[in-house]
Amino acid sequence: MEGAHPLILERLLQTNMMKSVGYGCDEVCESARDKIRKACDAPDAEVHFLVGGTQTNATVIRALLRPYEGVIAADTGHIALHEAGAIEAGGHKVLTIPHQNGKLTAEAVDAYIEAFRRDEAWDHMVWPGMVYISHPTEYGTIYSLAELEALSAVCRKWQIPLFADGARLGYGLMAEGADVKLSDLARLCDVFYIGGTKVGAMFGEAIVVPKKGFIPHFFTTIKQGGALLAKGRMLGLQFDTLFTDDLYLKIARHAVTEATRLREALVAKGFATYYSSPTNQVFLLLDEKQLQRLREVTTFSEWEHLADGRTVVRLATSWATRPEDVDALIAAL
Amino acid sequence: MEGAHPLILERLLQTNMMKSVGYGCDEVCESARDKIRKACDAPDAEVHFLVGGTQTNATVIRALLRPYEGVIAADTGHIALHEAGAIEAGGHKVLTIPHQNGKLTAEAVDAYIEAFRRDEAWDHMVWPGMVYISHPTEYGTIYSLAELEALSAVCRKWQIPLFADGARLGYGLMAEGADVKLSDLARLCDVFYIGGTKVGAMFGEAIVVPKKGFIPHFFTTIKQGGALLAKGRMLGLQFDTLFTDDLYLKIARHAVTEATRLREALVAKGFATYYSSPTNQVFLLLDEKQLQRLREVTTFSEWEHLADGRTVVRLATSWATRPEDVDALIAAL
Amino acid sequence: MEGAHPLILERLLQTNMMKSVGYGCDEVCESARDKIRKACDAPDAEVHFLVGGTQTNATVIRALLRPYEGVIAADTGHIALHEAGAIEAGGHKVLTIPHQNGKLTAEAVDAYIEAFRRDEAWDHMVWPGMVYISHPTEYGTIYSLAELEALSAVCRKWQIPLFADGARLGYGLMAEGADVKLSDLARLCDVFYIGGTKVGAMFGEAIVVPKKGFIPHFFTTIKQGGALLAKGRMLGLQFDTLFTDDLYLKIARHAVTEATRLREALVAKGFATYYSSPTNQVFLLLDEKQLQRLREVTTFSEWEHLADGRTVVRLATSWATRPEDVDALIAAL
Amino acid sequence: MEGAHPLILERLLQTNMMKSVGYGCDEVCESARDKIRKACDAPDAEVHFLVGGTQTNATVIRALLRPYEGVIAADTGHIALHEAGAIEAGGHKVLTIPHQNGKLTAEAVDAYIEAFRRDEAWDHMVWPGMVYISHPTEYGTIYSLAELEALSAVCRKWQIPLFADGARLGYGLMAEGADVKLSDLARLCDVFYIGGTKVGAMFGEAIVVPKKGFIPHFFTTIKQGGALLAKGRMLGLQFDTLFTDDLYLKIARHAVTEATRLREALVAKGFATYYSSPTNQVFLLLDEKQLQRLREVTTFSEWEHLADGRTVVRLATSWATRPEDVDALIAAL
Repeated sequence: MEGAHPLILERLLQTNMMKSVGYGCDEVCESARDKIRKACDAPDAEVHFLVGGTQTNATVIRALLRPYEGVIAADTGHIALHEAGAIEAGGHKVLTIPHQNGKLTAEAVDAYIEAFRRDEAWDHMVWPGMVYISHPTEYGTIYSLAELEALSAVCRKWQIPLFADGARLGYGLMAEGADVKLSDLARLCDVFYIGGTKVGAMFGEAIVVPKKGFIPHFFTTIKQGGALLAKGRMLGLQFDTLFTDDLYLKIARHAVTEATRLREALVAKGFATYYSSPTNQVFLLLDEKQLQRLREVTTFSEWEHLADGRTVVRLATSWATRPEDVDALIAAL
Repeated sequence: MEGAHPLILERLLQTNMMKSVGYGCDEVCESARDKIRKACDAPDAEVHFLVGGTQTNATVIRALLRPYEGVIAADTGHIALHEAGAIEAGGHKVLTIPHQNGKLTAEAVDAYIEAFRRDEAWDHMVWPGMVYISHPTEYGTIYSLAELEALSAVCRKWQIPLFADGARLGYGLMAEGADVKLSDLARLCDVFYIGGTKVGAMFGEAIVVPKKGFIPHFFTTIKQGGALLAKGRMLGLQFDTLFTDDLYLKIARHAVTEATRLREALVAKGFATYYSSPTNQVFLLLDEKQLQRLREVTTFSEWEHLADGRTVVRLATSWATRPEDVDALIAAL
Repeated sequence: MEGAHPLILERLLQTNMMKSVGYGCDEVCESARDKIRKACDAPDAEVHFLVGGTQTNATVIRALLRPYEGVIAADTGHIALHEAGAIEAGGHKVLTIPHQNGKLTAEAVDAYIEAFRRDEAWDHMVWPGMVYISHPTEYGTIYSLAELEALSAVCRKWQIPLFADGARLGYGLMAEGADVKLSDLARLCDVFYIGGTKVGAMFGEAIVVPKKGFIPHFFTTIKQGGALLAKGRMLGLQFDTLFTDDLYLKIARHAVTEATRLREALVAKGFATYYSSPTNQVFLLLDEKQLQRLREVTTFSEWEHLADGRTVVRLATSWATRPEDVDALIAAL
Repeated sequence: MEGAHPLILERLLQTNMMKSVGYGCDEVCESARDKIRKACDAPDAEVHFLVGGTQTNATVIRALLRPYEGVIAADTGHIALHEAGAIEAGGHKVLTIPHQNGKLTAEAVDAYIEAFRRDEAWDHMVWPGMVYISHPTEYGTIYSLAELEALSAVCRKWQIPLFADGARLGYGLMAEGADVKLSDLARLCDVFYIGGTKVGAMFGEAIVVPKKGFIPHFFTTIKQGGALLAKGRMLGLQFDTLFTDDLYLKIARHAVTEATRLREALVAKGFATYYSSPTNQVFLLLDEKQLQRLREVTTFSEWEHLADGRTVVRLATSWATRPEDVDALIAAL
């Protein structure tokens, strides 16, 4: 994990002694908001800057749901597994549906809600009050535009909001074969966020609410959740930099390019991949011998241990990955 | 759904104009507590009277767990499905494990906790902080003494409490082939409750905490949860009556006897049963024709629709079921 | 604390073996709802039956507020002091305003909200999202119709709901000099409840929501709060009895009459009263000698110890108070 | 509001491309923890780095309290007023006591708890489960060592934790006449934090738990609260810099020196001060004419409007305040 993109640090140095009001009400934040609105083709969007992903998920979900409601997510969704119960701590159940390559399908969501509403005991159960997806998913897969449109249509049919966790959004937008653009997210989701922490920023997630006022008093709910940065300008300047000259997309593309190079080279050498991830993540399926070989040349996290004895290993590139390091890894294997 | 056992009504009439202090601190409640302690062979147990099952589950679980903890339950557990998110509203996740005939096995719980503790990201996930079982289960099945002892041992090994939902407890204690007694529950669980609502009372559940002081300030947590009955004596007199001359067990046995008669007669007539329930519940597996036939003679709830087109139907007897009604149903089929 | 009015017990006996559906969806509950709608002159009102007061307050407030909102109450309000933090457990702050004889004045509420909205840091603070009053108050005082109309107007001006806790409502409606009727509450409040526990019922509070659908999915929120009685008919039959032939008002009037007799006799004997309560409560201000004298003839709770050494003592009559007992107390003093 | 101290930016630049593990488990954080332990003379202390003050207060309080408990605070405490209900959102009541110059006195806390425990209805009320103070307070006042020792003794007498909010801690430690040192806080409090956001850091608060393990599973509770920074190193490097060569204390002292100069000069010119704040905050009590004069030369926040028509205005210096700017302000008045 590196720090931030050099252009961000440069900007930080330049503006360090500038005086401004706090809590994101300064002009740097305003500038960043404008650039994001333009990039999303959503001129009326509200943009809020938060610090991290779990915080953003918990804050948005708590702000949107009423007490009797829960949030539908894939059973592999970040909020279902790896946020230490943040959603439940906010009072809401995560209603899980089995994933398809890390994704929720429109059909599965529709069938879930339809079955719920048909159940004669529905009013003794948690009402499905919104849908959470991550793009890219926790498995490095992405929604196609058609899939996202179908999901959005299902949500609108049932009149519940669609929320996209974009902690790794850049890598999804720039993935091989991706056809979902920022403006599509703004058109099809009710809330989504543009992840900075994993895509060039030191920290920071930009929540986009395409329809202004959709979440009443959201500023106060953010404050209540401990998610309002006092020196909000620090968030604004990072996103202002990332959304100047398409830096966000360029560095995301770089990571995808390096991941693709790595994946193709490894496949050529006989390694198997597990999920077919077109993003910055490479999931390898290794037997004991291959695992041993990889251990000798680098460190990595073991993602999953399969029943057949093989191990799934995840390698991720980033805006900071140097091509020569990828070359070296390929050569070493 | 009938009201209460006639002996309870009689007692109510006799004591109606008696004056007493509120909130369960009166002598009738004390007498009921003593009788329950004796029936459980747990002389130091705390006994608290609450009104209903969801309330009791939510109150006990919230009192026992710390913020970072969740409760393990079968995926068919009442708290996982049919309590409208009461546990999550209290801030905690229900950690589900696939059921075995409605039950949690000691092995599955042990494996779950072991895998959790081995996971390198465990501290980003919800800590399994207690185990919830229902006895009998939502499927009318019961734990054997050996199964309960094994579960209790797993909980003690991992130092987390075991909590048994006894909303239908009488029917489990008196089930065909049952070998778990009240004293076993008091010995093997950290908290359990004796359901009155479904077994002869107008309403009421008696929480038993075998080890006094195990839940600090539980009275205040009950009050906070809106679960403290002002005229607590109404609960005390119901349980005092039910635990006089073994009334609780006798009326439960009656229901089981009638259910067994019904089940055996229906099986003899060619009906298939779905779960093998030795309690007051009969789960029939009906084809379309049988379903139609049953519809003509009685009303019932359709429990589940199987993929093969058959329907699972649940019939339940109670302390109030008249033998002649069972005879009539058998004859009509 | 006695049990229930004899007519309720009679009805209970008559209907005990009747079979009905659960959760308050039965015809007895429907009949009670109709009678309450008529008594309130609110033909479209929703009526929900809950078990107790703290439960009702917590459930209604949690259902009405959004995460960023709190509830305004007098600093002597039951929710502010004597509900063990039930409102906060539901996630919301109680915003207290100094009371005036146990009451909130329209002016004080208006000034509070106006100051809040003018505060430049308002969005870092809890938004006043509703107003809670109790009628009668915890001090046995009552709102006049003019006071209630003024409060309602302030709430409507600021577009926040007005909720009246009617745990002792009967004694307020029938108080000496009272000019607020049930239909006024239905016209001026957004939600209120008719207390049964303290006015003739064994237990039970009837929530009235004059504008149908004002609280979406309220049934599920009630269930989630553990506040849904399985054998809901038990609640319905109590309110159906209380709202037949004006029983509720008649027994409340009886209690007020006896309290008035007691108060007047004691004042005639030189005892001072503390608050001027026209309801079933008598607050005496006693010096040490008077306190001693009272101790010799009855038991009571010491309400407050004043700095000047005197003690405030509360005596309350009820539907069950016998005139001869009041006579005896007066004679003994 | 400026950014961060130049030495922090320098360090950020130097280490930006360094790779490290996330979530504060890296060696930079470890180094910072060691320096803080030394500065606090608390070799076994746990140190956790969070991002902001409201977040820190909410996380610590939620981690420490059980459901039936609340937190005692001055009625002017930050958690009581300016955190948008964050403590209540975590399920707990803030139990307020009238402040003395922004402070809680040991006597007042002791009397509060004693009265609570004597109250016959105590178990229907929120149990005082911890004490929250801020040092310096929201009014810029500080606790003397004797006052802090007395408060700590009261907390230990009643066996509840003492928690000090140190959002502005540096300015308290270096205030005129201050006799409380970091090691005193570590000795007398159960948890406290060293504020970075307001004292030289870009963001960040360092929680110190002098007794290791005092808060079980705190890491997970932090994660659950959305308060765990992914690139935790960013926090570590800031505190590591601030705790090298006493930078934290030196820059805090600078702010106090400038505030003292400003205050003394203004008093000499006939301005009145409101609270006697020995820290970096100056509270002026201005009549309309003085207010006008001040408006002409600078911008400031109006703290309070007194009944006599005068206005309290708060001026705060910081590590970044330039002496020439203070000179200019003094000259302009």
